[in-house]
Amino acid sequence: MISFTCDYNEGAHPLILERLIATNLCQEPGYGADAFTESAKARILDAVGCPEGEVFLLTGGTQTNSTVIATMLRDYQGVVAAESGHIAVHEAGAVEYTGHKVLTLPQSEGKISAWDLQDYLETFYADGAYDHMVFPGMVYISFPTEYGTLYSKAELEAIRDVCLRYELPLFIDGARLGYGLMSPECDVTLRELGRLCDVFTIGGTKLGALCGEAVVFPSGKVPEHFFTMVKQHGALLAKGRLLGIQFDTLFTDELYFKIARGAVDLAMELKDLFVEKGYELFMDSPTNQQFVILTPEAAQALEGRVLYEVWERLPGGRAVTRFATSWATTPDQVQALAEILP
Amino acid sequence: MISFTCDYNEGAHPLILERLIATNLCQEPGYGADAFTESAKARILDAVGCPEGEVFLLTGGTQTNSTVIATMLRDYQGVVAAESGHIAVHEAGAVEYTGHKVLTLPQSEGKISAWDLQDYLETFYADGAYDHMVFPGMVYISFPTEYGTLYSKAELEAIRDVCLRYELPLFIDGARLGYGLMSPECDVTLRELGRLCDVFTIGGTKLGALCGEAVVFPSGKVPEHFFTMVKQHGALLAKGRLLGIQFDTLFTDELYFKIARGAVDLAMELKDLFVEKGYELFMDSPTNQQFVILTPEAAQALEGRVLYEVWERLPGGRAVTRFATSWATTPDQVQALAEILP
Amino acid sequence: MISFTCDYNEGAHPLILERLIATNLCQEPGYGADAFTESAKARILDAVGCPEGEVFLLTGGTQTNSTVIATMLRDYQGVVAAESGHIAVHEAGAVEYTGHKVLTLPQSEGKISAWDLQDYLETFYADGAYDHMVFPGMVYISFPTEYGTLYSKAELEAIRDVCLRYELPLFIDGARLGYGLMSPECDVTLRELGRLCDVFTIGGTKLGALCGEAVVFPSGKVPEHFFTMVKQHGALLAKGRLLGIQFDTLFTDELYFKIARGAVDLAMELKDLFVEKGYELFMDSPTNQQFVILTPEAAQALEGRVLYEVWERLPGGRAVTRFATSWATTPDQVQALAEILP
Amino acid sequence: MISFTCDYNEGAHPLILERLIATNLCQEPGYGADAFTESAKARILDAVGCPEGEVFLLTGGTQTNSTVIATMLRDYQGVVAAESGHIAVHEAGAVEYTGHKVLTLPQSEGKISAWDLQDYLETFYADGAYDHMVFPGMVYISFPTEYGTLYSKAELEAIRDVCLRYELPLFIDGARLGYGLMSPECDVTLRELGRLCDVFTIGGTKLGALCGEAVVFPSGKVPEHFFTMVKQHGALLAKGRLLGIQFDTLFTDELYFKIARGAVDLAMELKDLFVEKGYELFMDSPTNQQFVILTPEAAQALEGRVLYEVWERLPGGRAVTRFATSWATTPDQVQALAEILP
Repeated sequence: MISFTCDYNEGAHPLILERLIATNLCQEPGYGADAFTESAKARILDAVGCPEGEVFLLTGGTQTNSTVIATMLRDYQGVVAAESGHIAVHEAGAVEYTGHKVLTLPQSEGKISAWDLQDYLETFYADGAYDHMVFPGMVYISFPTEYGTLYSKAELEAIRDVCLRYELPLFIDGARLGYGLMSPECDVTLRELGRLCDVFTIGGTKLGALCGEAVVFPSGKVPEHFFTMVKQHGALLAKGRLLGIQFDTLFTDELYFKIARGAVDLAMELKDLFVEKGYELFMDSPTNQQFVILTPEAAQALEGRVLYEVWERLPGGRAVTRFATSWATTPDQVQALAEILP
Repeated sequence: MISFTCDYNEGAHPLILERLIATNLCQEPGYGADAFTESAKARILDAVGCPEGEVFLLTGGTQTNSTVIATMLRDYQGVVAAESGHIAVHEAGAVEYTGHKVLTLPQSEGKISAWDLQDYLETFYADGAYDHMVFPGMVYISFPTEYGTLYSKAELEAIRDVCLRYELPLFIDGARLGYGLMSPECDVTLRELGRLCDVFTIGGTKLGALCGEAVVFPSGKVPEHFFTMVKQHGALLAKGRLLGIQFDTLFTDELYFKIARGAVDLAMELKDLFVEKGYELFMDSPTNQQFVILTPEAAQALEGRVLYEVWERLPGGRAVTRFATSWATTPDQVQALAEILP
Repeated sequence: MISFTCDYNEGAHPLILERLIATNLCQEPGYGADAFTESAKARILDAVGCPEGEVFLLTGGTQTNSTVIATMLRDYQGVVAAESGHIAVHEAGAVEYTGHKVLTLPQSEGKISAWDLQDYLETFYADGAYDHMVFPGMVYISFPTEYGTLYSKAELEAIRDVCLRYELPLFIDGARLGYGLMSPECDVTLRELGRLCDVFTIGGTKLGALCGEAVVFPSGKVPEHFFTMVKQHGALLAKGRLLGIQFDTLFTDELYFKIARGAVDLAMELKDLFVEKGYELFMDSPTNQQFVILTPEAAQALEGRVLYEVWERLPGGRAVTRFATSWATTPDQVQALAEILP
Repeated sequence: MISFTCDYNEGAHPLILERLIATNLCQEPGYGADAFTESAKARILDAVGCPEGEVFLLTGGTQTNSTVIATMLRDYQGVVAAESGHIAVHEAGAVEYTGHKVLTLPQSEGKISAWDLQDYLETFYADGAYDHMVFPGMVYISFPTEYGTLYSKAELEAIRDVCLRYELPLFIDGARLGYGLMSPECDVTLRELGRLCDVFTIGGTKLGALCGEAVVFPSGKVPEHFFTMVKQHGALLAKGRLLGIQFDTLFTDELYFKIARGAVDLAMELKDLFVEKGYELFMDSPTNQQFVILTPEAAQALEGRVLYEVWERLPGGRAVTRFATSWATTPDQVQALAEILP
């Protein structure tokens, strides 16, 4: 059975495991004060090109999003996001649980537009009763989006401009950041991305780590006592070394980017395969997640041999499906799918 | 440099790392639906002797405490705890952050008494204005306590009786559970403990795992949609396998208990060593944490050679200190301390 | 200057003030245990025709909505509402502040449809990942709606049926309930309304009281320790008599309904007036709020003589405006407007 | 039956009712934008002697406390209070419900000492693990306290000094402020009090109003968007005029202080009465609440003729009781008690 279900179905990249073993008996302080975390932070800031930045290593995606958002907002503020944004749909109301509204904008291919954002903000402040409403306090976008799509540099700059005009911090959720940056269609670099936002995350869980998300504040403007609030959110790992070692490894010799590149390359092969065989793409994704409309015949052929995720059922037995690649996907697996797929 | 600073200064028990490597390429579903987690849960329930129970694997201690407490309380309720309880002091207000008060009772050696609990509850319901106050909704105790001490079986039963009388669930925080159960002074078994409470945790982080706390509901009475609330609290790991593999390993061939026993044995050696050399114990702990009052001379002798934690500074340069052992502590390290200590 | 700005621009109906004076020196216990509140509750339950019901008197609208919603939901649940619902827009995120998401449905004339509700619920439970999402926990509708419109009895029954099918409590926000029930187009009685929902409010503030909203649980199913949670939400008035006296007066000799009827009658005159003079209605409201599109000429004619609320500015200097009547509106005022309006 | 049960058992001072009637038909905007509220604010600021200050009028005590505290604290902070403080005991966990811990200090006669506060703060910041704990974010005291006692000017200045040293805002809960200021033992004026804290309240409910608490920020430093957060807390009254009229009346011709003086004078007579007859005072209160230990004989004599509040039952049938006076208490009532009391 081959699985393309998602990008977190295997363990960790072997180099991470090797490193865990090699360092296992080093005695290091807890809660992120260890030498590995220190080194990982330095490597990340180096890659982002912002020595004045600050990095924190948290455990999981929902946790990271709700911690960052709750600590950056004041009580009277909400976070602006696409109606398809992960925080708006699939995080069990973790943001609302911290007391804040998710203010949704329409999406196209998972993206919001600077225009819609500007329009929303103008309309908000033009409303005579705006102080009876939730104030927009920050903007959240995901890169890549939940549909695997990417904002172009121009789109990011336009959103950034609106944010600056309204003094709203911009938060980029990079749970799958590497797959975005290593996409052939990506026209923004990590360093540029760091200059285009106030805070972003570098997802480890879906990119070769056992767990871990790095939160980067490129300009070093961190919410006061962020450490304590991370603890308050249950997001502080006692053995912070587990996160430090993983990110230190991922950011040594560009492992993070090599993993991402490999997965995206195979995803492009997957896409070509589907297109060549006449399948309809639900979304033309340039990253490691491919959204394909499968016919009942195709589904039957894959039954019991290939795993994937059903995104949405369509009339006539067809279905929107997701095929994801990861560091662990091999060319052989793609080849095997090619042979099975009718 | 030898460190007795705490029990989470090294990585994981080698068997866990071996298992991570052996299983690394198995493709398993996320969010705790993997085969390792399933196996781990079965092994834990078997050890607890409650096949009808339910187990959830979370990542960290504060996270686990606040998730369990928030999901078991109604809005009008608080959690009763010792004034020295971890949730009352060192968790950055994580419980209050979820909207619930920690209702504190006096402590003696880190423990509450059934008598004080009964007295508090009687007084509460005798107050004509009790519906203007926070209702006690559950009782939290730690085993071992924050001072390394243990409740006897009789003490637990007495507390349990009061809880039953007032229909209050009893929650036992077992962040260091193994060290308690394997103490020579412990007179309660894991199975008995499971019958004495409504929910308890089995700490992995401080007992050989990289991270992970198992939440056990011995009678299977789990808050409705607990899974979703775990996600809401940011406590759901995408690669649940990381937790599953670790607990499955810890509960194979009694590894968890062997680790604990070894550490407690060395801690008893440490205690004997201090007592023989005439040091005063701040607390007579029967578990892996030893609280000793160090003289300035002793501190000077250890300077640069042995690490430990300063708990509280006393007049005259003396200090309450903590020496902790773990799976990674060796007899050689204890021997070395013996030679250094004046 | 005549004001049609809103229905809470004057004080209280004179009978209420008379009653406040007459009872001023009676010594009564606080927090709603007074005899006036007891009498008010009995009168309300009598009017609703549900002797087994329970009534609580709170101070304000947003307060009442967030208290009722927060106390009826479990942590993993949100409240379903029209995207134009008061709780979704103009309550400063009071619901989210209590940790719960407002799950919005499309609206038409301020109303949700049973069909959209059914569709949303079906889709929700058909989603394989629904336990990563906020569960629908109750349904909120306003009667009349924020646009002054009314659900028909058939529409309410259809919504109720869906709610029953999914075991969702139905909450009717009746901040302007009287104006709805006394509308010539209303085909549902107060008693029928009580049988069609699990909880509803009877707004006093906008219907002749100085302040006060009655929360009615027709079947008597009240969230446990609701009193304590009302206090916790800051919604418990020490001198509960203030609320008791007002509602007791409003529900004596049908004052509440007479007030509402008078205001609606004048609002219908207002509507006729606008229609006769050729103005376009933004919404054909059968209740005390009239939404009219004013031309720049009309606006200029009213300038400095008649007050109203601008709802939304339109191109060409036109504007959606609101004219509201209340117990204090007089036929003379409507006549005066008729003479001024071009 | 004469009642000394509490100071909110009657309606409002007659001048307030007169004013409500006189202004009833004035059309004024809602939400505190009315002319009465504007006038009330000016009068209050004049009385406090801080023209640069800001005033907000809220409805009730618990509501005011939790709104002020929640809006002045950051997520990582708690509020320091006496263990007997109203917010720590009798507000149903309203502060914790907003996510903040109440950090309690020991009390003596309901008061904290500057020394204990200083000691707590020093100890807190000396703890190596303080960033795992809840940060003190403000200090709450009540004036008079829950036991009717008063801080002296020197005590207030000492607490203020500690607050300044640690940059902690000082919040004075003046739910019964007038009774404190008009006490013969009070050595601080309203103007001095305004200079000694960052925010304080002027309670109306217990001092002649139907409802209402004025929040005064003497230096004008108000939490950003406080208005919106007041709404979010359900504390914004639509007919703000109800609060404006009441406070405008209370602060015209010093009515507030005359009411308070009258009640305190009668309370002193009550105290003398009890002392002369040989009763033991539980607390020597210089304000309108008297705490007396009643014998079973006294209780029997008062049975059915005089109402008071039982504070705490003592062995041997004795009880700590509270007798409170208010604007509505008459010399005749005190005289009647004198005749009944054995």
